[in-house]
Amino acid sequence: MSKVCFGVDVGGTTIKMGLFDMEGTVLDKWEIPTRTVEKGSKILPDIAEAVKHKMQERSIEKENVEGVGVGVPGPVDADGVVHVAVNLGWGVLDIKKTLEDLTGLHVEAGNDANVAALGEMWKGGGVGHKNLVAVTLGTGVGGGIIVNGQILTGATGAGGEIGHIHVEDTEADCCNCGNKGCLEQYASATGIVKLANKKLAATTETTVLRDGEVSAKTVFDAVKAGDKVAMEIAEQFGEYLGKGLASIAGVVNPEIFVIGGGVSKAGTIVLDYIKKYYTPYVFQGSRDAIFALATLGNDAGIYGAAKLVL
Amino acid sequence: MSKVCFGVDVGGTTIKMGLFDMEGTVLDKWEIPTRTVEKGSKILPDIAEAVKHKMQERSIEKENVEGVGVGVPGPVDADGVVHVAVNLGWGVLDIKKTLEDLTGLHVEAGNDANVAALGEMWKGGGVGHKNLVAVTLGTGVGGGIIVNGQILTGATGAGGEIGHIHVEDTEADCCNCGNKGCLEQYASATGIVKLANKKLAATTETTVLRDGEVSAKTVFDAVKAGDKVAMEIAEQFGEYLGKGLASIAGVVNPEIFVIGGGVSKAGTIVLDYIKKYYTPYVFQGSRDAIFALATLGNDAGIYGAAKLVL
Repeated sequence: MSKVCFGVDVGGTTIKMGLFDMEGTVLDKWEIPTRTVEKGSKILPDIAEAVKHKMQERSIEKENVEGVGVGVPGPVDADGVVHVAVNLGWGVLDIKKTLEDLTGLHVEAGNDANVAALGEMWKGGGVGHKNLVAVTLGTGVGGGIIVNGQILTGATGAGGEIGHIHVEDTEADCCNCGNKGCLEQYASATGIVKLANKKLAATTETTVLRDGEVSAKTVFDAVKAGDKVAMEIAEQFGEYLGKGLASIAGVVNPEIFVIGGGVSKAGTIVLDYIKKYYTPYVFQGSRDAIFALATLGNDAGIYGAAKLVL
Repeated sequence: MSKVCFGVDVGGTTIKMGLFDMEGTVLDKWEIPTRTVEKGSKILPDIAEAVKHKMQERSIEKENVEGVGVGVPGPVDADGVVHVAVNLGWGVLDIKKTLEDLTGLHVEAGNDANVAALGEMWKGGGVGHKNLVAVTLGTGVGGGIIVNGQILTGATGAGGEIGHIHVEDTEADCCNCGNKGCLEQYASATGIVKLANKKLAATTETTVLRDGEVSAKTVFDAVKAGDKVAMEIAEQFGEYLGKGLASIAGVVNPEIFVIGGGVSKAGTIVLDYIKKYYTPYVFQGSRDAIFALATLGNDAGIYGAAKLVL
């Protein structure tokens, strides 16, 4: 029998699991609930149980399992230790050792955003590139950086936490992180709504955005319909994000930016607004970086987690 | 005989050369002129000649040479190919292959700022750390980033070009790179003079800085003497650089920043001004990064170049 591996993406409510062959083809995909009770102490045993059950179900021998990769919502260091994962109830936890003891299998662990970046490199929007910055524009702005095919973990597992780089000196409101003027305050779905509400309060111009609740989706739908106010909001979004990504490029000089998350569902128009402001701010050596949409959606995590053990 | 290696740091006027043992002790150190005539075509043959001559002089056999590492002032990709080095007259040049053909020895090449960062990690201000950002505050602002003990080269060799990340939206003057508001325009020796001259033009306050030509050195000397205007200039410098380094930390999450170059000769007071503004802007996971002074000075390049082949 040819070898297989498991990719596990631990979220606050659901654990996504995937069984892959060595080429990265999904053989099976399922979910189990995340039991955050008792400080999250059930989570790793539940994962171990699910892995064992799948092995039994499919008659997979231990020697044919290359390993189990796990992505979790928190900073994970290079040794597979998470230092805190608030959503799971975890403090410091040696994921690699604990899950290896529970399963007898080789385990690797990483931060979920970093692992998703690895997934997009392997099988998604970044295929063919080894130096990649993945940007997830969801409720917040997440990031994952791949250097020479490897996750940039950093000293404390906070590598690629690009949502909190400073892009605005005049911000009065605090970011969730406690600082002011973080990229996340303007380029996330939440940030776009904030930009929109400010713009609507400051202008009397007619716009479809006054006709209901504003979201990142309604803003970009209005942009596509030619709504002038919506286009001005998109320009602001593009300037903050383009400028922020230019700074990131000045540091890591990527081949490609892969843009994912809810906001990216608006399509390539999002990339156009980013590129418009990236180019004038970026250092020449990174001017030719490619911008692409993420393609794996919510599966990026299980793909990247599987890749961790290959 | 125990093994040795060569470290070569190619500058615009002088090539610094070092002979090292495998533990990184300098056995010999010398310089040859950089002959930039004929599009720099003499440079690599001159280096090969100098290496061979030293091997003869010290009766070193080829099999005892681990290799020759070379740092050059231009973007060098992961294969040892430089894409342009204006100061040397070079266009695209495969340094690794050319010098290997000339010497019959193993050769590795890197960008000089990146290589100097590797030197500071190995034997300088960053000893004991594997995730490091080196910042050189000279005529410009140079940078080198070490991730997991390896140089972050980037897609086109422009990794760590941190002098050109954007930190000021209101700048009217262009940076040497053509953009506006680059970190280099405020945090380099030249940038500090510019900040000082602006301040002196805008205030009528008494300051020793009016008593002669202003330089980064006279500014920090005046700061140490308690000069109020000089201290205000140092605050501006610290805010630009601290904020810029906070953005960099948000991307690569280093253990340590190693600050070198002429401006750093003012000592730890420079670090104090940087840290004051780094802390409020940086993401929590990188808040405990250490700030240290570079210790190898102009020798960082030959140390790092030697380390390239080890």
